[in-house]
Amino acid sequence: MRMVDIISKKRDGKEISTEEINFFIEGYTKGTIPDYQASAMAMAIYFQDMNDREKADLTMAMVNSGETIDLSSIDGIKVDKHSTGGVGDTTTLVLAPLVASLGVPVAKMSGRGLGHTGGTIDKLESISGFHVEITKDEFIKLVNEDKVAVMGQTGNLTPADKKLYALRDVTGSVNSIALIASSIMSKKIAAGADAIVLDVKTGTGAFMKTEKDAERLAHAMVKIGNDVGRNTMAIISDMSQPLGFAVGNALEVKEAIDTLKGNGPEDLTELVLALGSQMVVLAKGAETLAEARKKLIESIKSGSAIKKFKLFVKNQGGDPSIADDTDKLPQAKYKIDVPSKESGFISNIAADEIGIAAMLLGAGRATKEDKIDLAVGLIMHKKVGDKVEAGDPIVTIYSNREDVKDVRAKIYDNISISNKVEKPVLIHKIITE
Amino acid sequence: MRMVDIISKKRDGKEISTEEINFFIEGYTKGTIPDYQASAMAMAIYFQDMNDREKADLTMAMVNSGETIDLSSIDGIKVDKHSTGGVGDTTTLVLAPLVASLGVPVAKMSGRGLGHTGGTIDKLESISGFHVEITKDEFIKLVNEDKVAVMGQTGNLTPADKKLYALRDVTGSVNSIALIASSIMSKKIAAGADAIVLDVKTGTGAFMKTEKDAERLAHAMVKIGNDVGRNTMAIISDMSQPLGFAVGNALEVKEAIDTLKGNGPEDLTELVLALGSQMVVLAKGAETLAEARKKLIESIKSGSAIKKFKLFVKNQGGDPSIADDTDKLPQAKYKIDVPSKESGFISNIAADEIGIAAMLLGAGRATKEDKIDLAVGLIMHKKVGDKVEAGDPIVTIYSNREDVKDVRAKIYDNISISNKVEKPVLIHKIITE
Repeated sequence: MRMVDIISKKRDGKEISTEEINFFIEGYTKGTIPDYQASAMAMAIYFQDMNDREKADLTMAMVNSGETIDLSSIDGIKVDKHSTGGVGDTTTLVLAPLVASLGVPVAKMSGRGLGHTGGTIDKLESISGFHVEITKDEFIKLVNEDKVAVMGQTGNLTPADKKLYALRDVTGSVNSIALIASSIMSKKIAAGADAIVLDVKTGTGAFMKTEKDAERLAHAMVKIGNDVGRNTMAIISDMSQPLGFAVGNALEVKEAIDTLKGNGPEDLTELVLALGSQMVVLAKGAETLAEARKKLIESIKSGSAIKKFKLFVKNQGGDPSIADDTDKLPQAKYKIDVPSKESGFISNIAADEIGIAAMLLGAGRATKEDKIDLAVGLIMHKKVGDKVEAGDPIVTIYSNREDVKDVRAKIYDNISISNKVEKPVLIHKIITE
Repeated sequence: MRMVDIISKKRDGKEISTEEINFFIEGYTKGTIPDYQASAMAMAIYFQDMNDREKADLTMAMVNSGETIDLSSIDGIKVDKHSTGGVGDTTTLVLAPLVASLGVPVAKMSGRGLGHTGGTIDKLESISGFHVEITKDEFIKLVNEDKVAVMGQTGNLTPADKKLYALRDVTGSVNSIALIASSIMSKKIAAGADAIVLDVKTGTGAFMKTEKDAERLAHAMVKIGNDVGRNTMAIISDMSQPLGFAVGNALEVKEAIDTLKGNGPEDLTELVLALGSQMVVLAKGAETLAEARKKLIESIKSGSAIKKFKLFVKNQGGDPSIADDTDKLPQAKYKIDVPSKESGFISNIAADEIGIAAMLLGAGRATKEDKIDLAVGLIMHKKVGDKVEAGDPIVTIYSNREDVKDVRAKIYDNISISNKVEKPVLIHKIITE
């Protein structure tokens, strides 16, 4: 088998076989297939796409390129949730304890990552003492006993994906649905998920700017998951404005706590319930989505959800009293209101630019080496469709530097006020096949 | 400027600027742009093509990546001829002395190359004593005095093209019209051509199997040439069967000598006259094609052509008496006739497979290191459309090994006999823009 023939076959729009996909991924992982052939192959896939069988094969070839996490000693069906990423997305922090409070195991491997704010681990580390450096045995014990734990990603999972992603990043083939879908799914499967709930964001703050692209990606991932024996479904959710009100690490932890207590923003609460019901049904914690939703709401109302959060925090070395007094979270030195210049209705909040405004304050990382400031960020006071009077604060900046001219300018540039507009729909679609 | 942005631009079908093309080719030549970006770029060009401006810029960027040959001290317009390659193509050996015999300078740089038979230099080395290792000064002096000389390729011409071609060869982007056209044209221009006549072959024995692809390539090259100030035209010629009767090095030299004396195969003679007239007109050796053609025919008839050939051979150390006694050329030990098994008309001669049959005898190189046997090859006795009786020899094998079962089988497999068929048209089209 010669790699050049496989590239040419794909280039000509022909289907490549399981053996050919394995030859490519194994060879590329080992280094017998050089970068210059892998980048040409990725570009050929970009143009010619892959059919369902090829995508499933590519996913499993990447899973098999490295170690995999065996979660079989955890009782029950392990459902993982994945978000394609957005601005102010605090769902994992709410979902993990909330779903666990219903007895469904949540064994979450998480990362730090790059972006407007930190990853789930960064956010959790806003809680004094909280750490994710636990052994795999401790992790499994915690999930078996208390149904929830978060562990930093360890082991050499999907090395082929890591190598290929880094290559695609510098050779112009990031935006291939087939390659994005198999990359995401390979990571979830290698991390031991039995079933997967996907939150595919669409809008200015999302990787997939259009609903059409988001749907294509969702369908591709759901098909891969189901084809390789992992029950998978996806929700297409709105990211045309930031989710919730908070954008920033400690600020989002506070928002997650509020939500677990039943006082969260409407959109975040709704998305958590939608994703959570799917997770609970996939894990067989309820028969129907309606039943699951009812149980989740009940858990919030009864206090089970916040109780589970406290146990989760305590189990991993954190201070659970933070749930009662969120002032114990890292606090920014300056709180600066940004007042509306005019009266009207909020017609647009450019989510990506609001994310960048938070990054300017130090809430996120541009490169792996950057340190992030957990205290800083933004609190939005208005959502698209809300009425606003001139002088009303539309955003509060939480900053550790006094001069925030740049951030304020970015906020003004990216929030529009006009005549009355409709509120955007939060959940665009549910994709199950 | 970042290479990944240039790749993405081309991937999205946008035009890339002169500066971006220069950045790519300069960086790739120096090694600051790695193979994996160049291969992704080549694949993006494969899918999105290049417009005329981009192709001209790419050509000149490759010309400027290395040394160029300055032929300005040769009087007159230097016209080069390039063939995209076929089986039994002896035109250069005939054209060089023939065109020179009309006073048009022919300053030919040539290579050995891979293929069914050797390159022009290999063929010429069938002539005892002939050598192409002459200095540039000797080369220029010979062309100025006697109008014709052939020199082995020296100097570091178009290093970017060499590097990119080798990369495309292993990454599935050889078959891009834009890349093939700029590769060929950059080599001709770097070698000092003022004007260029292209012989673009089409058919089973050619790189371009279909007439449509051959035409696309011809148009692309002619446009590039004219855009960068080199008068360029192309002839699309038939390569659905081998050209002439001989396939093999010394055998083709004999056929070239026969043609220069007016006794050559009809198709080879016709193609030589067609290409030669264009060369003479471009060099301003005649006003019209008809006038040029008349002069060329006259040169053959009067003996000027073969006289020029002898002078050319003598000038480069070869034995000119070979033109009077072609038995002095390397002779194969065995001459084995392959008789027709049935009566009828030759309906197909698969040129590429006949070329491979000659290679099996040792006439060509598969890798640079292979030695070639100058004496061996095939003489066809029939062309497509010819009548044949069972028992008539259709091919004679010239071999230095007695057992030629494999070659005979290949010949039988690739020559078809059926009811009467039309002879194929030799010259499909003339492309001047």
